[in-house]
Amino acid sequence: MSEFRTEHDFLGEMEIPNSAYYGIQTTRALDNFNITGLPISREPLFIQAFGYVKKAAALANRDCGVIKPEIAEAICKACDKLIAGEYLDQFVTDMIQGGAGTSVNMNVNEVVANLALEILGHKKGDYDIVHPNNHVNFSQSTNDAYPTAFRLALYRKIESFIESLQALQESFARKGEVFKGVLKMGRTQLQDAVPMTLGAEFNGFSTTIKEDIQRLNEAKMLICEINMGATAIGTSINAPEGYPQIVTEHIRNLTGIPVVLAEDLIEATCDTGAYVQVSGVLKRIAIKVSKICNDLRLLSSGPRTGINEINLPRMQPGSSIMPGKVNPVIPEVVNQTAYYVIGTDITVTMAAEAGQLQLNVMEPVIAYSLFSSLTYMENACYTLTNKCVNGITANEEICANMVMNSVGIVTALNPILGYEESASIAKEALATGKSIHVITVVERKRITQEKWEEIFSLENLINPRFINS
Amino acid sequence: MSEFRTEHDFLGEMEIPNSAYYGIQTTRALDNFNITGLPISREPLFIQAFGYVKKAAALANRDCGVIKPEIAEAICKACDKLIAGEYLDQFVTDMIQGGAGTSVNMNVNEVVANLALEILGHKKGDYDIVHPNNHVNFSQSTNDAYPTAFRLALYRKIESFIESLQALQESFARKGEVFKGVLKMGRTQLQDAVPMTLGAEFNGFSTTIKEDIQRLNEAKMLICEINMGATAIGTSINAPEGYPQIVTEHIRNLTGIPVVLAEDLIEATCDTGAYVQVSGVLKRIAIKVSKICNDLRLLSSGPRTGINEINLPRMQPGSSIMPGKVNPVIPEVVNQTAYYVIGTDITVTMAAEAGQLQLNVMEPVIAYSLFSSLTYMENACYTLTNKCVNGITANEEICANMVMNSVGIVTALNPILGYEESASIAKEALATGKSIHVITVVERKRITQEKWEEIFSLENLINPRFINS
Amino acid sequence: MSEFRTEHDFLGEMEIPNSAYYGIQTTRALDNFNITGLPISREPLFIQAFGYVKKAAALANRDCGVIKPEIAEAICKACDKLIAGEYLDQFVTDMIQGGAGTSVNMNVNEVVANLALEILGHKKGDYDIVHPNNHVNFSQSTNDAYPTAFRLALYRKIESFIESLQALQESFARKGEVFKGVLKMGRTQLQDAVPMTLGAEFNGFSTTIKEDIQRLNEAKMLICEINMGATAIGTSINAPEGYPQIVTEHIRNLTGIPVVLAEDLIEATCDTGAYVQVSGVLKRIAIKVSKICNDLRLLSSGPRTGINEINLPRMQPGSSIMPGKVNPVIPEVVNQTAYYVIGTDITVTMAAEAGQLQLNVMEPVIAYSLFSSLTYMENACYTLTNKCVNGITANEEICANMVMNSVGIVTALNPILGYEESASIAKEALATGKSIHVITVVERKRITQEKWEEIFSLENLINPRFINS
Amino acid sequence: MSEFRTEHDFLGEMEIPNSAYYGIQTTRALDNFNITGLPISREPLFIQAFGYVKKAAALANRDCGVIKPEIAEAICKACDKLIAGEYLDQFVTDMIQGGAGTSVNMNVNEVVANLALEILGHKKGDYDIVHPNNHVNFSQSTNDAYPTAFRLALYRKIESFIESLQALQESFARKGEVFKGVLKMGRTQLQDAVPMTLGAEFNGFSTTIKEDIQRLNEAKMLICEINMGATAIGTSINAPEGYPQIVTEHIRNLTGIPVVLAEDLIEATCDTGAYVQVSGVLKRIAIKVSKICNDLRLLSSGPRTGINEINLPRMQPGSSIMPGKVNPVIPEVVNQTAYYVIGTDITVTMAAEAGQLQLNVMEPVIAYSLFSSLTYMENACYTLTNKCVNGITANEEICANMVMNSVGIVTALNPILGYEESASIAKEALATGKSIHVITVVERKRITQEKWEEIFSLENLINPRFINS
Repeated sequence: MSEFRTEHDFLGEMEIPNSAYYGIQTTRALDNFNITGLPISREPLFIQAFGYVKKAAALANRDCGVIKPEIAEAICKACDKLIAGEYLDQFVTDMIQGGAGTSVNMNVNEVVANLALEILGHKKGDYDIVHPNNHVNFSQSTNDAYPTAFRLALYRKIESFIESLQALQESFARKGEVFKGVLKMGRTQLQDAVPMTLGAEFNGFSTTIKEDIQRLNEAKMLICEINMGATAIGTSINAPEGYPQIVTEHIRNLTGIPVVLAEDLIEATCDTGAYVQVSGVLKRIAIKVSKICNDLRLLSSGPRTGINEINLPRMQPGSSIMPGKVNPVIPEVVNQTAYYVIGTDITVTMAAEAGQLQLNVMEPVIAYSLFSSLTYMENACYTLTNKCVNGITANEEICANMVMNSVGIVTALNPILGYEESASIAKEALATGKSIHVITVVERKRITQEKWEEIFSLENLINPRFINS
Repeated sequence: MSEFRTEHDFLGEMEIPNSAYYGIQTTRALDNFNITGLPISREPLFIQAFGYVKKAAALANRDCGVIKPEIAEAICKACDKLIAGEYLDQFVTDMIQGGAGTSVNMNVNEVVANLALEILGHKKGDYDIVHPNNHVNFSQSTNDAYPTAFRLALYRKIESFIESLQALQESFARKGEVFKGVLKMGRTQLQDAVPMTLGAEFNGFSTTIKEDIQRLNEAKMLICEINMGATAIGTSINAPEGYPQIVTEHIRNLTGIPVVLAEDLIEATCDTGAYVQVSGVLKRIAIKVSKICNDLRLLSSGPRTGINEINLPRMQPGSSIMPGKVNPVIPEVVNQTAYYVIGTDITVTMAAEAGQLQLNVMEPVIAYSLFSSLTYMENACYTLTNKCVNGITANEEICANMVMNSVGIVTALNPILGYEESASIAKEALATGKSIHVITVVERKRITQEKWEEIFSLENLINPRFINS
Repeated sequence: MSEFRTEHDFLGEMEIPNSAYYGIQTTRALDNFNITGLPISREPLFIQAFGYVKKAAALANRDCGVIKPEIAEAICKACDKLIAGEYLDQFVTDMIQGGAGTSVNMNVNEVVANLALEILGHKKGDYDIVHPNNHVNFSQSTNDAYPTAFRLALYRKIESFIESLQALQESFARKGEVFKGVLKMGRTQLQDAVPMTLGAEFNGFSTTIKEDIQRLNEAKMLICEINMGATAIGTSINAPEGYPQIVTEHIRNLTGIPVVLAEDLIEATCDTGAYVQVSGVLKRIAIKVSKICNDLRLLSSGPRTGINEINLPRMQPGSSIMPGKVNPVIPEVVNQTAYYVIGTDITVTMAAEAGQLQLNVMEPVIAYSLFSSLTYMENACYTLTNKCVNGITANEEICANMVMNSVGIVTALNPILGYEESASIAKEALATGKSIHVITVVERKRITQEKWEEIFSLENLINPRFINS
Repeated sequence: MSEFRTEHDFLGEMEIPNSAYYGIQTTRALDNFNITGLPISREPLFIQAFGYVKKAAALANRDCGVIKPEIAEAICKACDKLIAGEYLDQFVTDMIQGGAGTSVNMNVNEVVANLALEILGHKKGDYDIVHPNNHVNFSQSTNDAYPTAFRLALYRKIESFIESLQALQESFARKGEVFKGVLKMGRTQLQDAVPMTLGAEFNGFSTTIKEDIQRLNEAKMLICEINMGATAIGTSINAPEGYPQIVTEHIRNLTGIPVVLAEDLIEATCDTGAYVQVSGVLKRIAIKVSKICNDLRLLSSGPRTGINEINLPRMQPGSSIMPGKVNPVIPEVVNQTAYYVIGTDITVTMAAEAGQLQLNVMEPVIAYSLFSSLTYMENACYTLTNKCVNGITANEEICANMVMNSVGIVTALNPILGYEESASIAKEALATGKSIHVITVVERKRITQEKWEEIFSLENLINPRFINS
């Protein structure tokens, strides 16, 4: 038996290795697109999503009477293999590709057709029986099948990412609880401000992540709007009546994802708004997580010549030349991941803006950007949680000393002494090095020692009451 | 009477012109920040919002018993003048400024104090009676007053921007109705695809804008979360008990904006998530509007050597050298505005990421970015609506001729002839210049003339039914 | 006499106020473009540059014999007024505008024509004698006149910006000299590293700025390539033979700017590479200056709970609630300016990428971005120099104490003890709080006191020699 | 023999598989950094560059007498294996990593140490004889070795990328020659402008790329400045006297790359200016190449309902539903690659701005961004050259017909008839559909047929002379 089979399309013929489940169009794409060296199989959820799309289409085509049940059944069985994660190595087209996803869609169509052929006892390439376009792709266009699969995969990846954010949020919340009695100096503009607790600071991190999760859940719902049945440009040309609704229902049932059919299929077929929104929220999260990592690095700076309020877990020797140095490598890698994500938002922006007329041909680079950013950020969040936040400890004594040694606590005297006298005390403290206590109570005798103790009790520093007389 | 009064702060004394309602701290800021040459008075809604904030604070301070009623009343009357848009010229600090907004806040505190002093029959600078810090700013910090005023102004500007988007959306919808019978060729990847109507295309633009408005309304709600009473860093130091809730209630009542108090004041005081979200949605809108403008320019290209399906209103001579040339100047100016907006999203991104510890000191450039982008985009949307979309007309005959002259209509034969034979017909048409009709009906006799007419009726081209035998 | 004159163009007639030197096309533009509210007169160098361009064109047209000498002379005199900065208020079109600059160009053509008419003793609007298009714009198109004027203005603005960078660089260099004996701890990754001097740190800032100036000077040369004589698209249609070379020579002589004629006028007319390069270098400078400001804020953090190695000049009270607080407001405003500049680079990027075929219609927003970024950054650099760097002082004792108290100095023992034993000493120091000296010399007796003093002499800490036995 | 060996560092002990040439620190990094799933071995030139750096350091250490010749020799032999591309699979740390490159540097140090040990007849892990830090890394820090290797690799990658740009430029130049007689309509703002040749248009593409190559060559030189011998922070602590110059000389000799030692090692150790510059130029190139691809897609749009002036090679079927459709997939994939590159410039920007004090810890994500962007763009340029530009053909007749059918040719009548009458002719042509010729010569008789033929000869349309009477 020959090692190759001959396939043709309207541009000509090619020899395809018999071992390949993909066919001529995939082979052309392999030849045409050689940019990243990263095949689409790098995103197994994307291939799985295509399995669902093609299966739902086969079922809907069967329901509409435009594909024979036995063919539909074979296609479904083939799709089940994709859904199960099999044959991943057959998905070979480059992550960045021209053609608005046609090559990925045809890659899937060809693999499903050949798997279906084998299931039916035929050999690969007998497309008269199961044809990539006439059967597997029936009632579809790349322009609806591709974005639908993209959205299903995106939904799953977002769900998965949210779990990592939740782990991070809970870790911060736990530390918030552990550190709730740790008095420390708050800082604004890197200058000493007023006291707070380390617990409140970590709770703040938790709150920030919690809000991000809410935003992401909202954005997630936007990508549930699909355009199956739009076919080429949204006019539903070549789709049987009722098909868009039926196929959408099948996708919802097969995946459990609450997809809905877009009301305006013309618009939905060229619109990239939901991707831009997801990318924007991802960027927001990257900004926030990066800000938190900046804070963790600041608070743990030192140990001797920095702030040194907290200790990060010591993960690896930090220098090839400076013995004993340990660096905040985990926040650092998370910062960098955030910068990657922020960069991809610009890629998505430019790709979205470049859409023309009835289609946005730049979707593949949008998919690449969102998939990689979601993966990297999920990895980063778990890394941050498990290798850093969970193990953070506080230097309580250092924290407390800095509070009482500070000038900023003079703020608590404002309601009694007014802004101007308080400022004058602060000024003297800074100039002389004296403490606020000495100047206020001992020297100027502006308040009594009892009042001082009331105002500057631990309880009042942590949860300031209004004391003005 | 001297033309100057002497004011002091803890850094020293300065001579202030007696005509000025602002005082020493504003004067220092004027001297320190000279970047854009654009004063904050460029944003009257921002000054108005500060009027509401200071008035609500005065009322809450009175309610809490920490400011005397007569002082509170004078402050309120002063604030009413700001709310009415008076004394705008007293708000002189540069839009981009250091200090996290302290200079704007003090500019307001000083102007309000001096106005209140005059109302009470005193002269400017008699701060013993009404003090910028001890009275006007009582129970506040820049770190809660500034972001609260920012959010109120943002809310109003977003409302105003949404009106412009609605005007644009309705204009597209009207054109969608007018053009609903205009058959034209759809294009994907700039290549001939399948037929559609011009009405559906314009309806798509309407749908796109409609979705953007929804997103913006969601983002608008996020900025209703305020942190009044957080004071310096969110611990509510120096605010009387109950004040945060009371002042929030006053703001809600005074403005009608559904503000709510943030649950985690520590987090809310340093968080810029809501600004990032608004900026992201603004960017999304800019992307979409820019894409639509690109389409309008493409569809009106020509008149003789382009697509020429539509005519934009002729607004001005288009060339200083080419007589008779008219250019799509309105979409062009909107594209450029969109690029400005997209640029500011990066400014916001970097500013948000640069927040450290208990405060984001970069808020002024965030405010500048969002304010200018909202203003410019609102102007752009009205310009696009009134000077372009409202006056667009269709070249119906050109549109229709391109459809029947196209090869893309072969797609409608797919369900009957299959993808491969259809491709062969298309290939022959492209090679020979023959029409699809001649090849299919006359020469190859693959379908009858009756069938052809059924498939290619205007009705079926516009709303394709599934015809497969 | 009527207060209005009637002007017409091929789209119709309009009444123009007799006081206006601009005419019908400017009036249309005023009506069409209402985006930023900022007129082009905000950039006097741009108007001046147009004066040079129009004057040079008139001279070249005279030289080529296509415009009568007396008309050319009148145009030249009119241009001299623009060059002198007069009539700025006549330049009213919005900074962001459609039409690729045609409105600015026509604004200039109309003002120059009417000024020339008055010079010749005629009244405004007598365009038979001096016509905005047929005389002032002769041998030109917006597509060569506009970018040429843009480049001349850009050149001047870059020169001016470089002066501000030089002032900043010299200020850092002076501080480098002043602080050359101040021993301090170097930090990498915010962790204690090895000793250095504060002088070396400030010298580093100086070096960084010096390199930026070099890059900017290189970029400046790129914009000296102009396309005068290209006319509409680079084919020189309607320009007399020899005109491109002659007009270029005139511009060079009039301005002293070393402009050269582009070799490929077709390419030069649509290319925006030089703007992108300038914008990229501006972004580079913004990044570097922002990094330096971040460092200044870090090094001056505290005063009690931060690093506190240096003192920035105290420019203004830093808080409306915290008495005595002073913030690093100058670096803060510079950071924000840098973020603005970085944002505009994205605007330039998108505008440049959006160019189509023979012209980039988005040049006005590129001009707006570059002009505003150059202005703001120049202001920011002078502000940083004069209000911050010049007045920085060092806390020498704090700096020195941190060095000897650090663990990082163990690195100097590496060559003698090897990385592993040094690491073990460091580890013990961190765990016990003991000093490196005690562990190494007193307890472990690994080196003698003499050796210790040799290694840790001030001279050797500042300029480490290699000491390995 | 055990399958594992025990290694230790100052944080503890680990079991390392005996097969691994890397050791404990690499193993920790493997565990700590799991972000992209892409190991640094994806950049063989980076590993090779490290081979050169470590070899040069060994030679310099030998020259300075601080490492024994036989150890240096073994290290050199080990490095030669890296330079030859062997043992790539031993370089396993993630492309995005914390620690400023320490993990990559230690990965190299460990592999080189173990290779050297084997060369000397010892077994892996016998670090007493050849130690990763004490020998391989001697006189170095990550902070000089890592950026130096990065720069060497960058230099090579830029060289390689330039070759792809040259291929593209030459391909455009060849087409410029082939198409030099093809008359076509020039377009500005997507509106018909004046005639030109297709050859001039393609020559313009060639010119654009040629200028980009010049900019890239300039940027390439900036990265030749290295900081070897700076060690930890630029003070050269622990490096023997003369070492910086000697090691730089060795690198220059070994690689042939014209590296020079930075004058200010403190500055050079934290500066990322050269990377920002390279990234900016890369972005510039991406913008330009993307603009060209946009043009190619526009010019080949249709075939029946677009511009259709040129044909791109037909690379693959363009639709899974529209038979016969072929899309411009090659420009499309290049556009998307350009958007990726533009996105990474933001990543580089944020990473560069985030550098603090004596080091920029974000260099790994800068390296990842530049390496991937260079690789992808190089692939994209070869793809564009070989699969698109080389095979472009012109539709000469279509091009020519559009010119004579246009209104824009009226511009050539300007010098004779003046702008206003020419505009009136254009207006009539547009309104009535008549040709410019009929109105001007036949009806209005404004010029003779002879004059018409002189002005509108092919020769004059392609290379317009000035004809004004």
